Amino acid sequence: MSDPDFLRACRGEEVDHVPVWFMRQAGRSLPEYRALRGTGSILDAIADPALACEVTMQPVRRYGLDAAILFSDIVVPYHAIGFGVEVVPGRGPVIAQPFSSASDLERLRDLEAADIIHVTQTVDLVVKELESTKTPLIGFAGAPFTVASYLVEGAPTRDFAVIKSLMHRDPTLFDQLLDRLVDITVSFLRSQVEHGARALQLFDSWAGSLTRDEYRRYALPATTRVFEGVADLNVPTILFGVGTGELLGLMSSAGSSVMGIDWHVDLDEGRRRVGDKPVQGNLDPARCMSGEELGIEAAREILKRAGTSAGHIFNLGHGVLPSTDPAVLEAVVRVVHEEGKAGVR
Amino acid sequence: MSDPDFLRACRGEEVDHVPVWFMRQAGRSLPEYRALRGTGSILDAIADPALACEVTMQPVRRYGLDAAILFSDIVVPYHAIGFGVEVVPGRGPVIAQPFSSASDLERLRDLEAADIIHVTQTVDLVVKELESTKTPLIGFAGAPFTVASYLVEGAPTRDFAVIKSLMHRDPTLFDQLLDRLVDITVSFLRSQVEHGARALQLFDSWAGSLTRDEYRRYALPATTRVFEGVADLNVPTILFGVGTGELLGLMSSAGSSVMGIDWHVDLDEGRRRVGDKPVQGNLDPARCMSGEELGIEAAREILKRAGTSAGHIFNLGHGVLPSTDPAVLEAVVRVVHEEGKAGVR
Repeated sequence: MSDPDFLRACRGEEVDHVPVWFMRQAGRSLPEYRALRGTGSILDAIADPALACEVTMQPVRRYGLDAAILFSDIVVPYHAIGFGVEVVPGRGPVIAQPFSSASDLERLRDLEAADIIHVTQTVDLVVKELESTKTPLIGFAGAPFTVASYLVEGAPTRDFAVIKSLMHRDPTLFDQLLDRLVDITVSFLRSQVEHGARALQLFDSWAGSLTRDEYRRYALPATTRVFEGVADLNVPTILFGVGTGELLGLMSSAGSSVMGIDWHVDLDEGRRRVGDKPVQGNLDPARCMSGEELGIEAAREILKRAGTSAGHIFNLGHGVLPSTDPAVLEAVVRVVHEEGKAGVR
Repeated sequence: MSDPDFLRACRGEEVDHVPVWFMRQAGRSLPEYRALRGTGSILDAIADPALACEVTMQPVRRYGLDAAILFSDIVVPYHAIGFGVEVVPGRGPVIAQPFSSASDLERLRDLEAADIIHVTQTVDLVVKELESTKTPLIGFAGAPFTVASYLVEGAPTRDFAVIKSLMHRDPTLFDQLLDRLVDITVSFLRSQVEHGARALQLFDSWAGSLTRDEYRRYALPATTRVFEGVADLNVPTILFGVGTGELLGLMSSAGSSVMGIDWHVDLDEGRRRVGDKPVQGNLDPARCMSGEELGIEAAREILKRAGTSAGHIFNLGHGVLPSTDPAVLEAVVRVVHEEGKAGVR
């Protein structure tokens, strides 16, 4: 039995069809998600393995996707060790006492299995559900820089002035912070694989706020250590950020198997920047907001830019927008599977 | 008498020192601005020529900048013709009845001199104030795509789904909308030059939300027509947007004299992308948030990347952040003037 197309594509092998999944596929755009989730905190929903498993499965069933991604959040391990993180609906992660000095390092203790038992139980349930279809589960975590930006800023930001100020004023403390986050991230990712996740995505959502010099000095070393910390597990790894066009080559050097490409960069140009490595992306989520016909047209543009079915995982260039009509995503999956066949286009 | 360094730099000529000004230099980071403005609507402040003149002059006096930029807003002409725009503090422009169908084209009538008499009176006052120092005044407007995104979305957005949907669903109506905006923008810019503005900046703030294909098809033609519409005035023009790294070459082809470069792109790489043309930028505003010493260090990095004093206007890569300490900007101006001397670095 050969591996599923998603895993084969992650390794740059030939595929029967281009595999497709969507970032934030398990979420508000699905009526069955809204019905199930209600209005409680997302962290409460994540803490309920049966609920989190069902939410993870919903888009896989509806769309016939090539991968499931765990219903979780990048702040989960920090919430679990008691750093004081809440996710405020419509706003995002908020930290009661943001990280600001060396004494805060103690608040970032090692992650123990017991801290995230709800996550590993969810992984167990999802893996069992996926057994019959062989669909792989993707585990994930936030990359150290992006997590640091949440912990230091204390709330979503557009200018990242506080984290950049810490970085430039006190690089030693900044590095110590990222060291702690590397350890926690590696533990969190390893746990997911040990329970059956077959690929890992690292979200460096805010890396694009950095200049190239800043990324190279302040973010790349920690990200590299995360990939080194899971290398022995032999599962494909994907690194993704938004607005990272200038950084793609540097990010690619961190050692992931696959590079995610947002929608700003043409996919063929993105391939060039990341070097000899499979790519994932890169349909603008906004192109899925104008009906099936225009969604299909947009998907075809991406397939064409990809050039070949090998080494391409079809995805959006960012998460599904909450008001997306699921019928459009259904149509996109259909056209990717039908037209993203083996061979060069 | 030779022209001031700012104008010479815009034409790629040799300068005595690298000229410097800051986007959003007239604004909340200045205590004298906060004292003068109070809490009223920014559109009311702009409508008061004496107040708007004083706000325009405040940063020029404090920092010894090489250019003044008119205290105004890109929605001013649309407010002036009664499109129903308000600027909500802490939120941005909000449109009571967003543009949504062909009948809305009628709401975008030509701009008459009487509509913007408050703006041209402000220009008159500022030009008189600047006479003794020969400091040039920069007039400005929003580029058609960016203005369209405000008029269509109706409120600030992060995903631009409504404007992109209009663009792809009804390209004819989208083009008609941009045609109207070109006419209004050209009138608005011409009025400012006729009253004494000596350079023009066009803000295509949200162009970076577009893919290259979308920019080429939907935004570039209108922007090009704006520059054609002011070409006979013989004043330097600057085109600027944020997150536009992938678009710099295309944007440069629209015909501005100078290209603004945000902070994501290294300045030397930005120069390469825009071709043989002066550049403006590109210090990350967040680097001015950590005291004078680190601000100076950051400014020196930009001077070094610029490579030569010719064809470089020093600026931030985006607007001044409201909580910036003016002492840091003072230090940046000093180091740019002292160390940004003629010749290759």
